[in-house]
Amino acid sequence: MATQLSPARLGSLFRPRNIALVGASDKSAFSAMAYRNLVDFGFSDSTYLVNRRGVPVHGQSTVTSCADIGEPVDVAFLMVPQAGTLDALSDAAAAGIANAVVLSSGYGEAGDAGRRAQAELVAHAESLDMALLGPNHLGFANLVDQIPVTPVPGLPRRAGRIGLLSQSGASSGAMVEFAAIADADLSYLVTLGNEAMITAGHVLEFLVEDENTDAIAIFMETVREPQRFAEAARRAAEAGKAIVVLKAGSSQLSARTAAAHTGALVGDDRVISAVFADLGVIRVDTIEDMMITAGAAARLGRLSRPGIGVVSISGGACDIVADRAEEFGAPLPELSAQTKQQLVTMLPGYGTVQNPLDVTGAAMLDPTLFTRTIQTMSQDPSIGVVAVVNVLPWQAGDGPYPQQVFVDAIGAGAEAAATPVSYVNQVSAPITDATKAVMAHGKITHVIGGLRQAVVALSNVGWWSQRLAELAADSELAPVSVVVPEDISRTGAWSEHTARTALAAAEIPVVPATLTHSAAQAVAVAAQLAGPVALKIVSPEILHKSDIGAVRLAVTGADDVEQAYQAVVSAAQRHVPDSKIEGVLVSPMRSGGVELLVGVVRDPSWGLMLAVAVGGIFVEVLDDSVIAPLPVDRGRARRMLDSLRGAAVLRGARGGTAADLNAVAAVIEKVGNLALALGDDLESLEINPLRVDGSTVEALDAVITWSPRHEDDIRRDELQEIG
Amino acid sequence: MATQLSPARLGSLFRPRNIALVGASDKSAFSAMAYRNLVDFGFSDSTYLVNRRGVPVHGQSTVTSCADIGEPVDVAFLMVPQAGTLDALSDAAAAGIANAVVLSSGYGEAGDAGRRAQAELVAHAESLDMALLGPNHLGFANLVDQIPVTPVPGLPRRAGRIGLLSQSGASSGAMVEFAAIADADLSYLVTLGNEAMITAGHVLEFLVEDENTDAIAIFMETVREPQRFAEAARRAAEAGKAIVVLKAGSSQLSARTAAAHTGALVGDDRVISAVFADLGVIRVDTIEDMMITAGAAARLGRLSRPGIGVVSISGGACDIVADRAEEFGAPLPELSAQTKQQLVTMLPGYGTVQNPLDVTGAAMLDPTLFTRTIQTMSQDPSIGVVAVVNVLPWQAGDGPYPQQVFVDAIGAGAEAAATPVSYVNQVSAPITDATKAVMAHGKITHVIGGLRQAVVALSNVGWWSQRLAELAADSELAPVSVVVPEDISRTGAWSEHTARTALAAAEIPVVPATLTHSAAQAVAVAAQLAGPVALKIVSPEILHKSDIGAVRLAVTGADDVEQAYQAVVSAAQRHVPDSKIEGVLVSPMRSGGVELLVGVVRDPSWGLMLAVAVGGIFVEVLDDSVIAPLPVDRGRARRMLDSLRGAAVLRGARGGTAADLNAVAAVIEKVGNLALALGDDLESLEINPLRVDGSTVEALDAVITWSPRHEDDIRRDELQEIG
Repeated sequence: MATQLSPARLGSLFRPRNIALVGASDKSAFSAMAYRNLVDFGFSDSTYLVNRRGVPVHGQSTVTSCADIGEPVDVAFLMVPQAGTLDALSDAAAAGIANAVVLSSGYGEAGDAGRRAQAELVAHAESLDMALLGPNHLGFANLVDQIPVTPVPGLPRRAGRIGLLSQSGASSGAMVEFAAIADADLSYLVTLGNEAMITAGHVLEFLVEDENTDAIAIFMETVREPQRFAEAARRAAEAGKAIVVLKAGSSQLSARTAAAHTGALVGDDRVISAVFADLGVIRVDTIEDMMITAGAAARLGRLSRPGIGVVSISGGACDIVADRAEEFGAPLPELSAQTKQQLVTMLPGYGTVQNPLDVTGAAMLDPTLFTRTIQTMSQDPSIGVVAVVNVLPWQAGDGPYPQQVFVDAIGAGAEAAATPVSYVNQVSAPITDATKAVMAHGKITHVIGGLRQAVVALSNVGWWSQRLAELAADSELAPVSVVVPEDISRTGAWSEHTARTALAAAEIPVVPATLTHSAAQAVAVAAQLAGPVALKIVSPEILHKSDIGAVRLAVTGADDVEQAYQAVVSAAQRHVPDSKIEGVLVSPMRSGGVELLVGVVRDPSWGLMLAVAVGGIFVEVLDDSVIAPLPVDRGRARRMLDSLRGAAVLRGARGGTAADLNAVAAVIEKVGNLALALGDDLESLEINPLRVDGSTVEALDAVITWSPRHEDDIRRDELQEIG
Repeated sequence: MATQLSPARLGSLFRPRNIALVGASDKSAFSAMAYRNLVDFGFSDSTYLVNRRGVPVHGQSTVTSCADIGEPVDVAFLMVPQAGTLDALSDAAAAGIANAVVLSSGYGEAGDAGRRAQAELVAHAESLDMALLGPNHLGFANLVDQIPVTPVPGLPRRAGRIGLLSQSGASSGAMVEFAAIADADLSYLVTLGNEAMITAGHVLEFLVEDENTDAIAIFMETVREPQRFAEAARRAAEAGKAIVVLKAGSSQLSARTAAAHTGALVGDDRVISAVFADLGVIRVDTIEDMMITAGAAARLGRLSRPGIGVVSISGGACDIVADRAEEFGAPLPELSAQTKQQLVTMLPGYGTVQNPLDVTGAAMLDPTLFTRTIQTMSQDPSIGVVAVVNVLPWQAGDGPYPQQVFVDAIGAGAEAAATPVSYVNQVSAPITDATKAVMAHGKITHVIGGLRQAVVALSNVGWWSQRLAELAADSELAPVSVVVPEDISRTGAWSEHTARTALAAAEIPVVPATLTHSAAQAVAVAAQLAGPVALKIVSPEILHKSDIGAVRLAVTGADDVEQAYQAVVSAAQRHVPDSKIEGVLVSPMRSGGVELLVGVVRDPSWGLMLAVAVGGIFVEVLDDSVIAPLPVDRGRARRMLDSLRGAAVLRGARGGTAADLNAVAAVIEKVGNLALALGDDLESLEINPLRVDGSTVEALDAVITWSPRHEDDIRRDELQEIG
């Protein structure tokens, strides 16, 4: 039976009253480093050393087994070799220890044998009802209570409010170091390793409930237990705690590398990005951006709007910020007429009033210019945060900081401001005790080092704030239920005719079509349509009709229609000899407009994903498509359309009629809802093309396929069909 | 007459034996800060203070004019208000001072009045044969000789080998600070201000010849005197000194902002990028990347090839490096079979041999694994630099650095390596004295802080090295001279017929066409062509023929040809009543293939720029074009084609015939050479479309336009025409 791993349960792991260091040895560098941490943090009195031979270790006496400790212990910190791990778990369990931290490697990351060993390890821990962190990791540190259960060196002696999770043990020390450099101090560091039992999702759940944690930073190469992760991310969003993820694997090379050293398969990177965006999880590219963004989210909280107002004494810095903002899509809104008017009265004649605002050298003579412009800018209706670009010291000077007067003026502006204010150092420099003394004097509470870093972090926090608002609104929407045919077998593929029925049931506009069963019937239908027609074979076994010549387009006149009918039937019979042919669809030909592809595919990790693309060059040459997990409402669908490069064509860039994008978005919403309504067996649903011409939106073809099923399901279907 | 500003002359400015601080005042913060620097750097004994009233300033006695100094002085450092500047220059010149550094603002950046004042300032300085740096800047610091002629605080007391130029005074202090953080120490800091007389190009020329400078970093918002800058950049390339530019203005907002506070027009950003790429000038996005890249170029020098080999003990770091490398196009070559085989014997069984190379935790037990893998990777034929990712301390510890053994092992690898080796700290942390002590013990000479930063800097240095090699090869090529018609007026626009003649003279393939002068003649020509034809009006006054209906395409049969002839002539007469009509061109219709646009336009700053684009969506919707300054040889043209997103279509992505890209490149080279041969009056030359179908390359239409000329030139032309 699986060990129960609720936040409360994990509390006994991450907030232990005491621990047993099992496998303590002077010969082990990890043991020595871990014990050194415990001594440094004053937790060695709450640490029991267990050594098989009972010899003194790290200058302390040891016991030979956990059972000999003689009092309740919360965590067994295992440093034993892989071969001794199962016995060590049994010994710990026998002593009543409920949690194990297992450092050894040679498990899931080490081929088939390793995977078997890992399954055995988990089964054994579960049989003992133990919670197990790792293996193949470097433990954790609870910095709130100053308890280091890890050999990672250089842990800080102060706590902050950011939980840091890392699948990489070897890089976690560098992340901890940069957290200190960026003044983004940690509540917990948890290295995850192979996540054999406790996964990132469990730790997230714990941190979402932890009152000492305001934001969570995660370095990961793969998302294990995607649904648990997603559910924990939803709870974090509800709690207003930002999750910032540095997810490796955006390149093919790193996906391969990560697979090599973690043993995990790395999912499609675009799917990950789409899912993160949906969940309100911020994705970043570097360790620095991860810690700075998490720090900004923790300090600033949710912004009321994403607009960034920039104030600086350096025109050059204003330019760099503007360039990076355009690169990263960070909003630097134009200020309102009222704000501009107020600023004009403050600034000398030669200054230009805009955002970013260059307060000019006049602020050297009158530092209150900072105070007043910050306050005024913060009151602009489009601004959600003010970034004040200036300098800060990081090395201790001989006397008071010569530029303290400017820092104090900025601090006064921040206190009077209507929005949060971030102080931005022009370059990436550490935030040291010397920096903090200057900040404290000026009552500055948040600093970001570096212009690029500030643009990235503040636009991330703005995006997250907006996404949280959207999610809160989304929760009101229930997916529309769609009636779909129940009498048709949900296996293999559906013919176009069947798929059309489902689309129509979902109120998705479909080009008119008549299923004909003879050439004469086809001729009669074509005659009624009074224009060129399309003829297509209908068979569940033939999905790629055009490829085998079972489609004829722009057919005119009775003779040609008759000939086309025969041609598509014989093409089908020739290429797929025993296919079940339902008939031939006859539709009016359509021309003009723009063709979209709208598809839904089930991702093995994340479920149904909706993809939208403009046909032709955009999808074939430029790979210009956008994806999102279902459900997707029409507002979201509209944003998806707008984000396509091909959207310009929809808007009539090449002389065509501008499409009614809201009408298109409404149809896309219906496609998503249909896919959801089709249920768990749906493998894919593709409309290709969805023709858009002005306000006309029409599916010209559709394919629906079903997942292969278990024996039982198939038998049930057969019984139903027989019945 | 312009003051002569050779490097030798600038030597007396930038390496002064002594200076006069003119306008010294206790009330001026700039004066106080500048004098404090002079005292701190021990140069106050070589400083004369000049105060109009002769009162003691900064605790020192003063003289009332430079003339009273009574001995030769090299530089007048002017802090006087704008109104007194001309007199102060006269005074300094009278005392034999040849160089002035002018801090005052209110010149070129301050509207029309300011521009007039600046012109007067320059004229006055020139009349005195004085060299003038500024105005509207913060002076300079010679760190080699430790002479600060600037109020910028926090200057380092040690010199490096990087010259730093900044158009921004207010941000120069932050740049200097980050240079120290990144261990990219400076030889000179020169703030440029308005560059009224001495421009970035002059300072570049000085630094290219300066034996204490190995690389040059520049922050600029606009390039003044583009041709001088370009020439200096060429000399820097020949000298093997890298130029790294943070050029603001990539966004529309910053271009506007820069114009506002520098008074300079900011050129087309894509042109700047193309010119920089051509010159081998490295362009970066942030202050941090500027200093780190310049530092890397100075330390590593030219790489023999751009491939980066990565070695790390952290798999997570390997993934991040791989992701960022893909993002920035940094080459992480696959290792040779021989290298892999050698590495396999070194690494434990569970390690994967690839680049980036994860040496695994085995290196904890055997640090020489670092040494051996670095050496082996450096010997791979595709590797030009090895980046070793690890950690480094920045704060002084209690005892020896616990991880010194790893640093030493990496240093041993660097010493044994066949290529330069950079030590990469996983995060952006300052390189302090504590860091340098650890580096020195391990004989590490180059460190980069941060994975993203390392990827950017090393790929920049690799690109620069490669570009320098190309430039050295390019210098062998002389532009092909092209015979063009000399009997036609070079004014306004040339008709398509005239333009065709020029193209043909340059051996650019052109669709056959006959100039007809009657409908009957057109019918006869069309009959000979035996297929659909195109008819186009020929008139130098009508450039956009299609727009007014003066083009008819796919015309078949004598009647239609006759009608089309009349139609295009009457459309021309109707829309451009008095236009000179040379006749009607009759050509065979072409269909199929891909249409390119190949154009040459004269940029006011940089001269003739060649642009290439794929027609249709790519250029109209995606703005997918590539530009380069002329001359462009076929190799370069081929690389331009390859860099287009639309190149996939040329390669046959959508089922078309793959184009012979080398044949296309050869034609593009000819287009560029024709533009050069047409001379200094050419305004633009556009071939639209250049049709490409397999190995067939053919210009279907061409327009050539000429720059408006001065009165004298026009008169000369008229005389020639009369003659």
